[in-house]
Amino acid sequence: MILPTAEIVCLGNELLIGVTINSNGAFIGEKLTKLGYEVRRTTCIRDDLELASAFFKEVFSRKPDVIIVSGGLGPTYDDIQLEVLGKALEVPLIEYEQAVRQLEAYYGRRNLGLTKERRKMALFPKGAIILSNQVGGAPACYLQYDGMDIFSVPGVPTEMEDILLNHIIPILKKKVENSFFELKFQIFNCVESEIAPCINDVKAHFPDLYIKSHPAYKDKKGIVIHLSGYGETAESSVYKAKAEMIKLFTIKVPSLIIKDFKD
Amino acid sequence: MILPTAEIVCLGNELLIGVTINSNGAFIGEKLTKLGYEVRRTTCIRDDLELASAFFKEVFSRKPDVIIVSGGLGPTYDDIQLEVLGKALEVPLIEYEQAVRQLEAYYGRRNLGLTKERRKMALFPKGAIILSNQVGGAPACYLQYDGMDIFSVPGVPTEMEDILLNHIIPILKKKVENSFFELKFQIFNCVESEIAPCINDVKAHFPDLYIKSHPAYKDKKGIVIHLSGYGETAESSVYKAKAEMIKLFTIKVPSLIIKDFKD
Repeated sequence: MILPTAEIVCLGNELLIGVTINSNGAFIGEKLTKLGYEVRRTTCIRDDLELASAFFKEVFSRKPDVIIVSGGLGPTYDDIQLEVLGKALEVPLIEYEQAVRQLEAYYGRRNLGLTKERRKMALFPKGAIILSNQVGGAPACYLQYDGMDIFSVPGVPTEMEDILLNHIIPILKKKVENSFFELKFQIFNCVESEIAPCINDVKAHFPDLYIKSHPAYKDKKGIVIHLSGYGETAESSVYKAKAEMIKLFTIKVPSLIIKDFKD
Repeated sequence: MILPTAEIVCLGNELLIGVTINSNGAFIGEKLTKLGYEVRRTTCIRDDLELASAFFKEVFSRKPDVIIVSGGLGPTYDDIQLEVLGKALEVPLIEYEQAVRQLEAYYGRRNLGLTKERRKMALFPKGAIILSNQVGGAPACYLQYDGMDIFSVPGVPTEMEDILLNHIIPILKKKVENSFFELKFQIFNCVESEIAPCINDVKAHFPDLYIKSHPAYKDKKGIVIHLSGYGETAESSVYKAKAEMIKLFTIKVPSLIIKDFKD
């Protein structure tokens, strides 16, 4: 099955210097995967207008169906996501009345007015559709360019998550219809290299499934096996592959212990 | 100050589909930053020979001084980092006797022999220098190509960390000499957009420093201000910038509370 493709871009020096672990990339990646996208790349880039806008031109040349960009929408000097996107898209930034209203309301509730720094957050590339931010100050946006859907969200996780779940996923759900099924189970009393040939055999029988062994999954003991697939037959295929795998594993390691796995 | 550049590449579908949060990227990024490198990009890519090898050709064309690649050195079918690097570098993979010995010793201690899957972990691109893995099975490697230093490490965090700290950093320390200084402090009773113009002013006086406000830093309350710089004068500059910042902040927000910050 050929899936539509996606790229995730996370903007911010803090991600590159290790001050912040990029949890946004994983959150967005999981949601896009379950929606039916193949996430091709997740890239963290610096708050640098020249480097970042050149980077986006590269992304656009690969023509992923969806691009989600997080980080760099705030009021400080290094919050340059929209300037970067405007430069890469070669469109001017214009002030959006709708965004000004949202910022006025957000700061108004805190008895603060619209300073130059706050008003900056209402400047979006021409053609943008504003997406409201119900959690924080900076509005987000949706851009369509050369067949790609580009979504611009803040880097603060609670704001990104709210906008992704309440604005972006509903828009993408209208475009993509791929049912997704996944299953995880846990095995004990073996090392990964013992079961690797069994996984290879099962993978050869189920080439459309994603099958992965995780020896150190979320710091849990044992090995977690993760199977997933897309489409109407995915659920059946996953169960068949699991059964075949358990048969092969237990021939190899008779003392194997198998458990269900919950995240 | 012009710093040598670095790119971090993390290989593994699990990073793109959100099963694993990319903590390796942050760990490696922090160590390289403190060593004196400008980390330009951190990219997560899929376990796909064609896509990943094409990606590495792009990275090589940018000629970063250092490239650290984590993930995909294990025994399973999707552990293809070395095949990807061989293809991108256009060199064959050859079996390294030193790596075979390390794998024999590692599995021997567990009363296991060298199967085909385990022996695969001794195949490295021609020209590689083997780096031993004291924590897990798969050896790592160091490659020099077209002026770039390329390090290949496992994705399991404990193994990556051990190899980075004990093999890679000592090699890079001989090449790079840039003292690094950083300082963080915390402020309360204000919103980020209130102090944004003060940060802009201070940044204009200290263009060589990295200055960043984090409104939601590691889930702590308040705003964390992070200042850092390179070179002999970095420490003095950071303290001067902090003093100027506190002066400007408290003019703007007289009720501001300032605290030291420990990670």
